[in-house]
Amino acid sequence: MDRQKKFVEEITSRDEDFAKWYTDIVKKAELIDYSSVKGCMVIRPNGYAIWENIQKNLDARFKATGHENVYMPLFIPESLLQKEKEHVEGFAPEVAWVTYGGSEKLAERLCVRPTSETLFCEHYANIVHSYRDLPKLYNQWCSVVRWEKTTRPFLRSLEFLWQEGHTAHATMEDAREETIRMLNVYAAFCEEALAIPVVKGRKTDKEKFAGAVETYTIESLMHDGKALQSGTSHYFGDGFAKAFGIQYTDRDNKLQYVHQTSWGVSTRLIGAVIMVHGDDSGLSLPPVIAPAQLVIIPIAMHKEGVLEKAAELKNRLSDFRVKLDDSDKMPGWKFSEHEMMGIPLRLEIGPKDIENNQAVLVRRDTREKTIVSLDNIENEVKSLLDTIQSDMLKRAKEHLDKSITNITDFESLCRAADEKTGFFRAMWCGKRECEEKIKETTGLSSRCIPFEQEMLSDKCVCCGEKAESLVFWGKAY
Amino acid sequence: MDRQKKFVEEITSRDEDFAKWYTDIVKKAELIDYSSVKGCMVIRPNGYAIWENIQKNLDARFKATGHENVYMPLFIPESLLQKEKEHVEGFAPEVAWVTYGGSEKLAERLCVRPTSETLFCEHYANIVHSYRDLPKLYNQWCSVVRWEKTTRPFLRSLEFLWQEGHTAHATMEDAREETIRMLNVYAAFCEEALAIPVVKGRKTDKEKFAGAVETYTIESLMHDGKALQSGTSHYFGDGFAKAFGIQYTDRDNKLQYVHQTSWGVSTRLIGAVIMVHGDDSGLSLPPVIAPAQLVIIPIAMHKEGVLEKAAELKNRLSDFRVKLDDSDKMPGWKFSEHEMMGIPLRLEIGPKDIENNQAVLVRRDTREKTIVSLDNIENEVKSLLDTIQSDMLKRAKEHLDKSITNITDFESLCRAADEKTGFFRAMWCGKRECEEKIKETTGLSSRCIPFEQEMLSDKCVCCGEKAESLVFWGKAY
Repeated sequence: MDRQKKFVEEITSRDEDFAKWYTDIVKKAELIDYSSVKGCMVIRPNGYAIWENIQKNLDARFKATGHENVYMPLFIPESLLQKEKEHVEGFAPEVAWVTYGGSEKLAERLCVRPTSETLFCEHYANIVHSYRDLPKLYNQWCSVVRWEKTTRPFLRSLEFLWQEGHTAHATMEDAREETIRMLNVYAAFCEEALAIPVVKGRKTDKEKFAGAVETYTIESLMHDGKALQSGTSHYFGDGFAKAFGIQYTDRDNKLQYVHQTSWGVSTRLIGAVIMVHGDDSGLSLPPVIAPAQLVIIPIAMHKEGVLEKAAELKNRLSDFRVKLDDSDKMPGWKFSEHEMMGIPLRLEIGPKDIENNQAVLVRRDTREKTIVSLDNIENEVKSLLDTIQSDMLKRAKEHLDKSITNITDFESLCRAADEKTGFFRAMWCGKRECEEKIKETTGLSSRCIPFEQEMLSDKCVCCGEKAESLVFWGKAY
Repeated sequence: MDRQKKFVEEITSRDEDFAKWYTDIVKKAELIDYSSVKGCMVIRPNGYAIWENIQKNLDARFKATGHENVYMPLFIPESLLQKEKEHVEGFAPEVAWVTYGGSEKLAERLCVRPTSETLFCEHYANIVHSYRDLPKLYNQWCSVVRWEKTTRPFLRSLEFLWQEGHTAHATMEDAREETIRMLNVYAAFCEEALAIPVVKGRKTDKEKFAGAVETYTIESLMHDGKALQSGTSHYFGDGFAKAFGIQYTDRDNKLQYVHQTSWGVSTRLIGAVIMVHGDDSGLSLPPVIAPAQLVIIPIAMHKEGVLEKAAELKNRLSDFRVKLDDSDKMPGWKFSEHEMMGIPLRLEIGPKDIENNQAVLVRRDTREKTIVSLDNIENEVKSLLDTIQSDMLKRAKEHLDKSITNITDFESLCRAADEKTGFFRAMWCGKRECEEKIKETTGLSSRCIPFEQEMLSDKCVCCGEKAESLVFWGKAY
């Protein structure tokens, strides 16, 4: 018991210091290790296996919506990056530059891709000729580099893993439809796989992607009441197409520019899972993306028949991602360890259980124990995993719902920003000055202009002039 | 028919100019596109889907042998790269150097990983403490960069996709066993999935990996008789462990160094598939890794019931990776196009076939046509795909076998190198001078010291002194 206590005591309490709790979890659950490159992390097997499950689930959704995977070069020549003016202004300050190949100085320096719009555009200009070539619905899984000053594992790092979808369409309507389609794919994925509810909406001009006409976002709420931008989908219009000369002949044999989109989510989603579902015992993973969904722990392992029974159960439960911990550690230690790793369900089996043809199932999320008959164990496990998944979403949804506050005047907004956490819904006139004043005064940034609009008042919460839209404001990662 | 002819005429004949044929295929089968970064390629959907199938198949083999996936940083600080002397000497001349982050000059320059031994070693030094932590069986899927002067799609490029396994073991025996185990995994994968037979063996000291004690290789033979190093597995001893301080306490509480291995294969395997199986009509893909295993082509599509029947068949055959081409191109054009893409099996269905409750199946590899009943179509397709897979291996094996020549004297070796292609088996004394002289005189390099040794003679083919081992020599990509 001493060791068990020690194991858990080593992590900071979540409500005491959320930032430190987070850092403790990523280390203690063995998700990451630091490396000698400042701001770059090693993603360890426990962390990478979550990413693999995220990839698998998302990739199937991309393919179901007609997308194909490709791979673009890691490097972008400086002249290529500069082709679209707004885009280069947004990204040039934060890229890594390769200036030497071996011992030779390069004639033109190359940046390590911070995002690949320019490469996709160059390729599309090569391969798109006729309306028959459209749409092009491409995606790539890769890593990108952005030279950030302050970094945190999964949330903001110099290099991160992500997917970036890049599509080219014949018409504006098709491209807009795609932009929203992929935002909805992300939202459904977050709810169904990660058990994380999101708010969907459009970014203000100040917050949109460099080069986009419109940026859409899904925003989620962490346990500490801060928002996390969890995925974005951009509509580019024909701006990139004009800069890169991506034209096709339409059915009337006229030259037209394509309309484009891009959309991405990253390993940041792992940070969201940690911060939405974790607690003082560690990580808590939704079954859909948990590397191991169930861990079997034999009790009194040395007693005759226990290990055999545990192995037999592992076999019977092979439809799930199941792990048998037959190491020589004490059961209590194992319990703590697997709770730290966030395995959704624990099955305990000892001599008495075997005698009674039963097992003990313990939920990671609620700690609830159920004694179930072995006759029906497959269904019991299935049904409990389903319940855990939906309960996790339900709790996260309740937390989100109760963290949304309506505000109609500036004073209340300032007070609320000091006293409360979460999202603040307030009206906005659409002017950047007001957005900036709110940020400076309260620390709140505009998270999105939600799809579900409502007129809380007809006045901007900041300047009192005519309100244009309802905005979600919040402190953000 | 004109268009069909034109479609095929655009590629060079394989036996006329193999190099040009290869370049034509990779473009025409839409595997790659060139990019504005010299030596880096865009891997298009047709090419990337092959890589995804290779990954899926190999990854399952890695996991079945107990390996876990991780992700290491893209960058290696110069000081870290320099920790192992031989390793840095081998790689430093061919790495890309990042010297700026945004507008700031870096205090220490970073190389883009050419391979990740140093990063894995640094991580292992952090996480390996006790014999209980061993073995560590890690793998990563990523891209690496080597600043090559002359590049060719898939075969040698500035950046390429690969997997690199890196393992740490308690003993020399365990590490050696792992080295050979993974070489065998590669060999089995090549035969079973790619239908490519390989020669397994050890590299000479001259050809081994920078920092390795021993390098093992699988060598395959392309249609033009040149060899392709298709995968390598390295035993490192405790050299890296000593350079990086990777130590553990053993069961007797004594400090020991770990013994390490690494092993990798890359997108080069796609090059092998092209050059072993392709022909003058284009690519020919083994069913196991073909993105589409079967393409259904409706004949007289406008006739009543044809498209419906084709769609129904697609549905019935959904156990396979099946594609229905209902585009408005002519059937002949479609035939050529899908042959170019290398789809293993084509199913033609027209009004007469429907009337007779039959379909026409055409093999890509042999062009053989079979008329089969629709009643049993699932089994017919399954059995034909199996046959294609095994016939492709059989033909490649026959080509390999008849391309191996035994040589016992230097003059014959010189003549053979001029007149023939393939592998030359000849005895070697073990001295680097002889290896270099053979290379200079004949253009043949040592491909491997095969596991299956035989004494063709007791004299070195070059110097006539005492022979040490039988070596496979060949011209190589």
